Amino acid sequence: MAPPDLYEAMSTLRAVRRLKPDPVPDDKLGRVLEAASWAPSGGNVQPWRVLVVRDRAKMARLGEVYAAQWHAYADGHLKGIADAPEAIRIATEKMLGAGDYLADHFAQTPVLLIFCFNPKSMAITDARLDRISVVGGASVYPAVQNALLACRAEGLGCVLTTLLCAEEAAVRDLLSIPEPWGTAAAIPIGTPVLGGHGPISRRPVSKLAFADTWAEPFRSE
Amino acid sequence: MAPPDLYEAMSTLRAVRRLKPDPVPDDKLGRVLEAASWAPSGGNVQPWRVLVVRDRAKMARLGEVYAAQWHAYADGHLKGIADAPEAIRIATEKMLGAGDYLADHFAQTPVLLIFCFNPKSMAITDARLDRISVVGGASVYPAVQNALLACRAEGLGCVLTTLLCAEEAAVRDLLSIPEPWGTAAAIPIGTPVLGGHGPISRRPVSKLAFADTWAEPFRSE
Repeated sequence: MAPPDLYEAMSTLRAVRRLKPDPVPDDKLGRVLEAASWAPSGGNVQPWRVLVVRDRAKMARLGEVYAAQWHAYADGHLKGIADAPEAIRIATEKMLGAGDYLADHFAQTPVLLIFCFNPKSMAITDARLDRISVVGGASVYPAVQNALLACRAEGLGCVLTTLLCAEEAAVRDLLSIPEPWGTAAAIPIGTPVLGGHGPISRRPVSKLAFADTWAEPFRSE
Repeated sequence: MAPPDLYEAMSTLRAVRRLKPDPVPDDKLGRVLEAASWAPSGGNVQPWRVLVVRDRAKMARLGEVYAAQWHAYADGHLKGIADAPEAIRIATEKMLGAGDYLADHFAQTPVLLIFCFNPKSMAITDARLDRISVVGGASVYPAVQNALLACRAEGLGCVLTTLLCAEEAAVRDLLSIPEPWGTAAAIPIGTPVLGGHGPISRRPVSKLAFADTWAEPFRSE
């Protein structure tokens, strides 16, 4: 099967949270990891590593940790949309339903990619600002996005999650992640139960892009 | 021109720092921004915006700020590799030469994309850990990577930079970025002066991916 063209892959990359327990073929997984390796990073240092978790006992333990985080998150999220317009409430409840499925079936996830990063190998330019830092992510999440796009190309369901980061100590112990490495993302991967990738819902460029000054609409014509 | 397939785009996306001053066609720029819009984000909130800077006076001012940051960074970097093996020293000096070119010609950059993010719209799961946070980046840098890959598809040179983040107050003033939005990346875009995109140098997957436990090599066969 020829890989999809770039724009088709990007525009049909959905968060797929319902995954079959069937194993992921090694050749597909290898291509997903190679795609991650191609991503840019500050100074080309590639200050990230990825743990490819397939061990059933470890996955079961990660599933317990994930489910506890998920249900706390989902409860808060549901309360937050109680007074939202019906369309938003319905879309959110649909997403939460898929999230419940992932949490309930986490132990059966065939492959989980846990992306780690080393802050000591990064020039984090916003570290001293009076706001939360994000710039370390500039050398990790491009690799994560490449992995997601490669999953799309390989017909594998996947979703970018960060809930396990809140329980980093437990994940560190389980997978023997040494200091000073931290965890940046966990990506469950598997064959989709339902339709898998397809149309996505996003804001239009006109709501996301400004011309030269904040809130001045960008127009490409 | 048909867009390249996904893997070809990813595996030939270089950091292109030598850009011609020629304008970037609007249709290409529109496709780059649309590609960014397709990226995943936590809760599909898309807590990012992008400033498309083309104003000459603003670019000149940003160039002054960038050049000061760059020369400080490059000086530190050169000292850091004084005792490195010759191959690494030569590769680094080549990168620094291209970086000098970008800094010296920043004011002539045809388009600069400045990606901003709103931490108040993000669930930053590593905010309370005893290490620097990166998770906010999970809702910004996938969009940045999509934009870079789209530049590759459009034949546009580009490079992910974060040096301007260190001078966020100056950038905020110049572009009227409101609180609590912060800046995550600045991407100069233009036609390459030299060959542009092409072969890249990265670590192999065997040095980046582990199986189930830290430092246990992952093998895909």
